[in-house]
Amino acid sequence: MINEQLLNPKSIVVVGASDDVMKPGGKILKNIVDGDYKGDLYVTNLKSDEVQGIKSYRDVADLPQNVDLAVLAIAAKFCPQTVEVLAKQKGTKAFIIISAGFSEENEEGAALEHQIVETINEVGGCLIGPNCVGVLTTNHSSVFTTPIPALEPMGADFISGSGATAVFIIEAGMAKGLKFNSVYSVGNSAQTGVEEVLEYLDNTYVEGESSKIKLLYLESVNNPQKLLKHASSLINKGCKIAAIKAGSSDAGSRAASSHTGALASSDLAVDALFKKAGIVRCYGREELANVAAVFMLEELKGKNVAIITHAGGPAVMLTDALSNGGLEVPAIDGPKADALLEKLYPGSSVANPIDFLATGTAEQLGDIIEACENDFEHIDAMAVVFGSPGLFSNAEVYKLLHQKIRDCKKPIYPILPSVVNVKDDIEMFINMGNVNFPDEVMFGNALTKIYNTPKPVMTGLNNDGVDVAEVRRIIESQQDGYASPEVVQSLLDAASIPRVREFVSDKVGDLKNAAKEVGFPVVMKVVGPVHKSDVGGVVLNVDSDEQLVAEFERMMQIQDATGVMLQAMLSGKELFVGATYEPGFGHMVLCGMGGIFIEVLKDVSSGLAPLNQSEALEMIHNLKSYKIIQGVRGQQGIDENKYAEIVVRLSNMLCHAPEIKEMDINPLLGEGEKVIAVDARIRIEK
Amino acid sequence: MINEQLLNPKSIVVVGASDDVMKPGGKILKNIVDGDYKGDLYVTNLKSDEVQGIKSYRDVADLPQNVDLAVLAIAAKFCPQTVEVLAKQKGTKAFIIISAGFSEENEEGAALEHQIVETINEVGGCLIGPNCVGVLTTNHSSVFTTPIPALEPMGADFISGSGATAVFIIEAGMAKGLKFNSVYSVGNSAQTGVEEVLEYLDNTYVEGESSKIKLLYLESVNNPQKLLKHASSLINKGCKIAAIKAGSSDAGSRAASSHTGALASSDLAVDALFKKAGIVRCYGREELANVAAVFMLEELKGKNVAIITHAGGPAVMLTDALSNGGLEVPAIDGPKADALLEKLYPGSSVANPIDFLATGTAEQLGDIIEACENDFEHIDAMAVVFGSPGLFSNAEVYKLLHQKIRDCKKPIYPILPSVVNVKDDIEMFINMGNVNFPDEVMFGNALTKIYNTPKPVMTGLNNDGVDVAEVRRIIESQQDGYASPEVVQSLLDAASIPRVREFVSDKVGDLKNAAKEVGFPVVMKVVGPVHKSDVGGVVLNVDSDEQLVAEFERMMQIQDATGVMLQAMLSGKELFVGATYEPGFGHMVLCGMGGIFIEVLKDVSSGLAPLNQSEALEMIHNLKSYKIIQGVRGQQGIDENKYAEIVVRLSNMLCHAPEIKEMDINPLLGEGEKVIAVDARIRIEK
Repeated sequence: MINEQLLNPKSIVVVGASDDVMKPGGKILKNIVDGDYKGDLYVTNLKSDEVQGIKSYRDVADLPQNVDLAVLAIAAKFCPQTVEVLAKQKGTKAFIIISAGFSEENEEGAALEHQIVETINEVGGCLIGPNCVGVLTTNHSSVFTTPIPALEPMGADFISGSGATAVFIIEAGMAKGLKFNSVYSVGNSAQTGVEEVLEYLDNTYVEGESSKIKLLYLESVNNPQKLLKHASSLINKGCKIAAIKAGSSDAGSRAASSHTGALASSDLAVDALFKKAGIVRCYGREELANVAAVFMLEELKGKNVAIITHAGGPAVMLTDALSNGGLEVPAIDGPKADALLEKLYPGSSVANPIDFLATGTAEQLGDIIEACENDFEHIDAMAVVFGSPGLFSNAEVYKLLHQKIRDCKKPIYPILPSVVNVKDDIEMFINMGNVNFPDEVMFGNALTKIYNTPKPVMTGLNNDGVDVAEVRRIIESQQDGYASPEVVQSLLDAASIPRVREFVSDKVGDLKNAAKEVGFPVVMKVVGPVHKSDVGGVVLNVDSDEQLVAEFERMMQIQDATGVMLQAMLSGKELFVGATYEPGFGHMVLCGMGGIFIEVLKDVSSGLAPLNQSEALEMIHNLKSYKIIQGVRGQQGIDENKYAEIVVRLSNMLCHAPEIKEMDINPLLGEGEKVIAVDARIRIEK
Repeated sequence: MINEQLLNPKSIVVVGASDDVMKPGGKILKNIVDGDYKGDLYVTNLKSDEVQGIKSYRDVADLPQNVDLAVLAIAAKFCPQTVEVLAKQKGTKAFIIISAGFSEENEEGAALEHQIVETINEVGGCLIGPNCVGVLTTNHSSVFTTPIPALEPMGADFISGSGATAVFIIEAGMAKGLKFNSVYSVGNSAQTGVEEVLEYLDNTYVEGESSKIKLLYLESVNNPQKLLKHASSLINKGCKIAAIKAGSSDAGSRAASSHTGALASSDLAVDALFKKAGIVRCYGREELANVAAVFMLEELKGKNVAIITHAGGPAVMLTDALSNGGLEVPAIDGPKADALLEKLYPGSSVANPIDFLATGTAEQLGDIIEACENDFEHIDAMAVVFGSPGLFSNAEVYKLLHQKIRDCKKPIYPILPSVVNVKDDIEMFINMGNVNFPDEVMFGNALTKIYNTPKPVMTGLNNDGVDVAEVRRIIESQQDGYASPEVVQSLLDAASIPRVREFVSDKVGDLKNAAKEVGFPVVMKVVGPVHKSDVGGVVLNVDSDEQLVAEFERMMQIQDATGVMLQAMLSGKELFVGATYEPGFGHMVLCGMGGIFIEVLKDVSSGLAPLNQSEALEMIHNLKSYKIIQGVRGQQGIDENKYAEIVVRLSNMLCHAPEIKEMDINPLLGEGEKVIAVDARIRIEK
């Protein structure tokens, strides 16, 4: 419920402003003033008529009408009344409450928070916080923290679930030249959380005008479906999103809960969600800053990188990082390479890495970049590593780099490692509007992480093969608990998932017909007795009518026998497909090979339902055991399309049955085109 | 061949000194002067009588006698003659040649280099370079680059195979407060390489006086055995070593070769060597700097870390990083925890992470650290995350931290993220002699990497079970190529590696006796024909005397049959053990499960021969399939000690047979205590 009054207010009031800039109420006013805010600025303070040289009102009731945005830096208990007056009497439509003492502290605080949200919702206003650092846009710096980073319309939109972490991320980003368009610290997310800010950015996105870079710091995902929807929508519009979701380990989750009171979602589900949305997942501030800096440059359109350097070591380490992450540093040769080599000093190399020696000049760098842009067609991007041993300035080289980054149609990544020796030159370079990667390996890891993040998948729910009415009918007839074998079978049938056919009869003729239908060999099991094996009630590999008749007659003599069940004796590799329901996320579907692969090697892929065929295939391809599914050592493989189809059908069926909290088909036997469910379990909880 | 004249020269001459400090010969003189060198300093320059205010000699022949160290910054072609005069006439025993144009450039340069080494070796002197940045010790700053980091006896000894990379690593380290005792840029390593410097540091190590921290940057490992010997020796004396070996990827290796002309060693062998030596392997400069900064603090003696913070986010991310790396952030509770909580502001938490809020004071931090040191016995270390929102200074907190780091008997890791907001306070903290970790996740990754690096293994070659004389006799009798089955068998026997017994005879009675010895079922194969299977010459599962006789009679009728071979029909899981010879490294031994595990899942462990039992067990434990070796799903496992014993015997046998360039035993069948070689291949190359 972000609104224009929050982002571009015509007037702001700081409630609880102070002369003391070591206090939040003093610092936030100072930041707004220092940030050269262009609208009307009001302040209130119970005890002063002037704060920081600005006329102060003692009571919000005395403020002029229509103050767009109110920033509250007063004790929690005074907030509801203040909000009431501003919202209902003064026409204020946007609120930032930096004060703590609300739901993060106790029940009482939660009640105050609830009251404030009600009031603001009544007037259709927007609330950021409480318990937050504030909001920073190109129009106003309503945060009580420093530093205030460089703000520009094409900088990153940064939304953070933690105020202090936002500050530290800004600090890490500034050192790399990261620019920001906006920063939102959502605090307790009482009305507006990370997902709602993202929703607004999506709904108001204008190509060519809106920033394309979104950075998120989350300690919990409160609304996974909203995050998925708007993140993938923004990415499909050309945006790039990177996010940290902290609390990925079990211990980390406890740390997250103790901090925010938020229950952490299962981490595998977060992974699946980010993958589906196309979000680049980061695990630390430095990593996020590196990824964001890559976002600020031209997009990489291929996988071939030229490394241009005047120092070998970093080029070698970068080559390792890129290669290990799936990018390539391909050889460069041929007459055009020879022509380039002519322009460099003796001893240079253009083989890639292109090494133009410690004595290399700005002019030579220009020649190299032009050759990579125009002559070496297989090169998609350039990483320029240029430090200094401290003998002379790098200003000329960095100015050239600045120009080339803007003019070149291929991305150029500047890696300037000499943060001490040419500190001033790097500062100049960053102040000219550039980013810098001080460490080539961290850059390489960031670039390959982006390269390896799949594009978002917009899966429309596809009901092909799923009898939705039947699924609902079955689910509604069930109680909580594990479903009976018959119910499991009918659900598999409703999803058109092939399963092993079973025939039960007390007439030997029926069973002979059934055996004809499924083909020998077959399995026979007595029906009636509970412990079938113990009473000799299970026989495998029955392979003739004669044997069938003999076993039938024997089994029917077993105590409590009411009939005999017959099914095909199947062969093939054991596969597995299962799902768990994660509140908010929906069903997380897992697949892989069964037996030791799942039990010992933990070789599973996961995805969020609904899944389409290409997502399911991708999951199968990501298995370590994929080659076995393809067929190795002379053994027949499994038709991966058939397997994927079952994964898709299962995921689609589950979208109509949120009451299924856990299910698995294990084993699913696969041999060539035959992929058949042999056993399955389903747990229902309404 | 490092000597005292290099490290602590009474006199230095800079040959080719210049007034122009933008030139190496000018800058190196300036650095020596600025570094407050205490001995006699001479300079030579062909054209001047004074350089930078110092009397200059036009000819080295005019220099006084006994100049300890000569630093050469003159063209390559003039170096041999200059070295000759200094070494033979002036008693100079240490040389640093920063000039390029030697073996790294062409054959001519290589000849000059060779000549210089000969001259210096004749007088028993030391040569660093050529083509290097120089040497930095606490006594003199003979490098032509900046920055000159803080130098102190307990700082790191840093040896680098690349000059520019050394500079960038120093720059990255300085930002974290890293101190140095010495820096060696070995350039072309004409006489003295990374390994030789390490050897010197090992041989001259004095407990309590020598620095305990060694950092290495390598683009090639020229003398793996020397590196292994001295690295593990130093670590056993209490030192810590971290190293980057660049060129780990295939493409990276090409980059390394193009740069240094050195052939990159196989990366897996490097990994195995570092593991055996106890070296912490790093892949980038920032990572190395973080690991080195951890080295500078008290050693971690357990796995339980308390995270102390006033901002939740970094604590959550750090918890994730530590947990994922195998360290723990255990809960803290009980009466002593309650007592600590009393001392903190309301809303604080001591559960771990210990969160003492944005308003937390230095005094409270002191209380927390004392409680972690004395009251919470299960806590082994503390990570203190303390940034700033920019409202006030952190100086008091950082001063307290400085004191506690020195007084506390448990390690305290300072994570100060606000590199912008409290830049000056962090600078003060670093200048007081501390290190800082600006990013908690990079710190966490560094700490867990150190934690997960095993201690060095000093494997004395153990010949138990290996008949060395027999191994040599066999090897010496062989030609190059694949050894015959008989030779393979006798080598396995000489190493006491159990193998499947084979009996060959053309008399059925012999075979009947053999079958009695090994027990039915047995396998029978015709001897004579090449393609045995094609002519029906292989029968499995022969399980009676009758069947044996029948098959014998049939087989002897096959064309070319000269007899029949009989062996036990074994069952069990397929294992694998193999080895390749890496020049310089020796044999790299690989082990794992056979079949799909090695072929598809690439699940192998590696180690450098000789291996002892605990190393071999560690290799087995590191397999992903280890649980299968232990026995899963009701199946019998394999006696891992028996398997390890075979790995050990093989590795020991190979130490006596460097002519074996490749070998593998595949399969090695394992079932309970029975682990038996079924098939093996050995390639000999002399």
